[in-house]
Amino acid sequence: MFENIKPGDEIEVRWKYQLLNGILISKNHDFMIIKLKNGYNLAIDYSHIQSLNVISENKPLKLTREEIRGSGKKVTIIGTGGTIASYVDYSTGAVKPLENAQDVLYAEPDLLKLGDIDAEVLFNIFSEDMNQKYWKILAKKVYEKISEGNGVVVAHGTDTMSFSASALSFLIENPSAPIIFTGSQRSSDRPSSDAYFNLLGAVKVAQSDLGEVAVVMHSSMNDDYLSIHRAVKVRKMHTSRRDAFKSINAEIIGTISKDLDVNMQDYKKVKKDEMHLYENLSEKVGLVYYYPGMEKELLLKFLDRNDGLIIAGTGLGHISNDYIEDIKNIIDEGKIIAMTSQCLYGSVNLNVYSTGRRLIEAGVIPLGDMLPEVAYIKLSFLLGNFGQDDAKVLLAKNLRGELNERRKE
Amino acid sequence: MFENIKPGDEIEVRWKYQLLNGILISKNHDFMIIKLKNGYNLAIDYSHIQSLNVISENKPLKLTREEIRGSGKKVTIIGTGGTIASYVDYSTGAVKPLENAQDVLYAEPDLLKLGDIDAEVLFNIFSEDMNQKYWKILAKKVYEKISEGNGVVVAHGTDTMSFSASALSFLIENPSAPIIFTGSQRSSDRPSSDAYFNLLGAVKVAQSDLGEVAVVMHSSMNDDYLSIHRAVKVRKMHTSRRDAFKSINAEIIGTISKDLDVNMQDYKKVKKDEMHLYENLSEKVGLVYYYPGMEKELLLKFLDRNDGLIIAGTGLGHISNDYIEDIKNIIDEGKIIAMTSQCLYGSVNLNVYSTGRRLIEAGVIPLGDMLPEVAYIKLSFLLGNFGQDDAKVLLAKNLRGELNERRKE
Repeated sequence: MFENIKPGDEIEVRWKYQLLNGILISKNHDFMIIKLKNGYNLAIDYSHIQSLNVISENKPLKLTREEIRGSGKKVTIIGTGGTIASYVDYSTGAVKPLENAQDVLYAEPDLLKLGDIDAEVLFNIFSEDMNQKYWKILAKKVYEKISEGNGVVVAHGTDTMSFSASALSFLIENPSAPIIFTGSQRSSDRPSSDAYFNLLGAVKVAQSDLGEVAVVMHSSMNDDYLSIHRAVKVRKMHTSRRDAFKSINAEIIGTISKDLDVNMQDYKKVKKDEMHLYENLSEKVGLVYYYPGMEKELLLKFLDRNDGLIIAGTGLGHISNDYIEDIKNIIDEGKIIAMTSQCLYGSVNLNVYSTGRRLIEAGVIPLGDMLPEVAYIKLSFLLGNFGQDDAKVLLAKNLRGELNERRKE
Repeated sequence: MFENIKPGDEIEVRWKYQLLNGILISKNHDFMIIKLKNGYNLAIDYSHIQSLNVISENKPLKLTREEIRGSGKKVTIIGTGGTIASYVDYSTGAVKPLENAQDVLYAEPDLLKLGDIDAEVLFNIFSEDMNQKYWKILAKKVYEKISEGNGVVVAHGTDTMSFSASALSFLIENPSAPIIFTGSQRSSDRPSSDAYFNLLGAVKVAQSDLGEVAVVMHSSMNDDYLSIHRAVKVRKMHTSRRDAFKSINAEIIGTISKDLDVNMQDYKKVKKDEMHLYENLSEKVGLVYYYPGMEKELLLKFLDRNDGLIIAGTGLGHISNDYIEDIKNIIDEGKIIAMTSQCLYGSVNLNVYSTGRRLIEAGVIPLGDMLPEVAYIKLSFLLGNFGQDDAKVLLAKNLRGELNERRKE
């Protein structure tokens, strides 16, 4: 369909009784995406196109080398899927993935003004389908790009972004360039999309001297600021708002203004020649949120299937006293059980109540202010790369900023 | 030990090289609790007492009828355990339960100024040990007290208070007097305790015309205001701070000032003669927080052991696409599976992404802005008192304020 038009062409299209004028960004067999003059991208399905005219051919969206301003470092955007690389199928109202991450770049020429930016699709999955296998592939690819001297932006679905960002935080020690995750809560062709500001901000941070894995997303519901979160301290705390990402039990690393000024404090700077890639993640690790009335059988199943388990207990880190004897036996057999809190905010403390003291005696490891999800990723990392004994010791030590060892409450 | 002294006696005691003067509140075989002149209660263990003298016998802590001011309604405080009815064992630093809820009353004479207040211990357990059996007993007891014309305050451990308060909210329909849960984050003998202000505020609300189950806890880290939360909208969001309780996806019902002025808005008023007690809760219900990398086997185990399952999915309500076919088969066999979000804030929406649409097609019930824990309690209530078909319909309808049916994001 419409084989005569090419990306870059300025077109006028009558679609659903509206006359639209814009630059073609991409097309496939069902729909095309055009950039409107107001800057928004619109996906239009062929079935509702009444007419289409080419106004002028191939208006270049790609800037020439000369047009690239600033001395920004080279950055690779790695697409993994998610809303940031998706469009709305207006026939059904559902959000579907774009087929080519390069489209994102093409759709947002401002990115190219920041420096030498390229993009590639590593995979294209919904982030709820992520798992250890993908994280290992992603870590390898990111490590490779950083080794080439690039900063890296990972475009990722927001649902499990904090899991993936944590996985890379543990797998790539002392990265010699920034590793920045970003995504969007609204698909990039929607007028309300947060995709481009997030992406532009992420690229800017990827050009900085940050030697950590971070997440860049909107600070507020307005389009005015972005926050830079430490990967191992951030959590998606709202289903749909653009400011859904919050640093928990930690300050944000910094902010990015609308003018893309990056302001960072208290962050780890890149060190050259100290980068190390860990290649493994254990899949024999579980995470369970305890609830009153939970059948003991279910908790035991988590332990039966795994070598290690993170529990998100109640309050300071509690579960039913009925479980503690079984837990002790399982720990005695050599499995690792560690405690976080489903309150999310605050710190586990097993020394206050007798339930906690019994858990300590049983060998449960208290994980302070570490988030349950981060603890799960960390245990997967530790059991993938270290022996059981080392894993136990390292789990309760701060490795990447995931644990404030001085925090008590 | 110290058999010659009785509660109400003013004593002077030399303990750990300090000379203390106060009123004896209670004693057991290991320790006694005294009320100091500054208003704080202190637990002192016998092993560190160097000397003890009775200054004057039996100073009455209990006020006479004449001293009770105001026309406050009769309120029964029901003790279930938790920090609010606990003390610090200074020999070990651990918090242990008080053995008699009446002690709380005795320890805080201001309570008696509010009206005709009595207290009884229903059980004394750590709140992490709560479950359906206790909730049924508690609901019956509360129903009985309300039927006698009393307002009710339930003193409860904070860890699972929102579960228990939700259980009572569903089990007692249209209560003809307020049912107010309260607790404390610091044991009541600590100078920093939030116990008494919480308890006094809870009693005041229990004397109001509120026809709902609510939770009364500190609004801020200061001792200046209390918040009144709807039971089915509140969650403990911090392990230790006194303002740990937050209304999620809802406004609080009201506040209580330091002077115990109650200010409520948008609440359900008591209706006479419409109260109904549901007596059952199903124990064949589960709650599982999904995480990327979760083994399908584990999710299936939750379904195998239960008639209904609440999933706390990622983002708008997602799980791995690999599970959906199995889930469809299980729903076809007649089990109930419903979706909430582990983001906690915001609303489930299964119409945006293809994963969500597949879940809808499989028969998963989206639960809007309902909290995962509340959905678990609600499903336990519905499967305990209604058939499978009615339970399915009622689960997605608002019954007690747990669901804002108009909220979409």
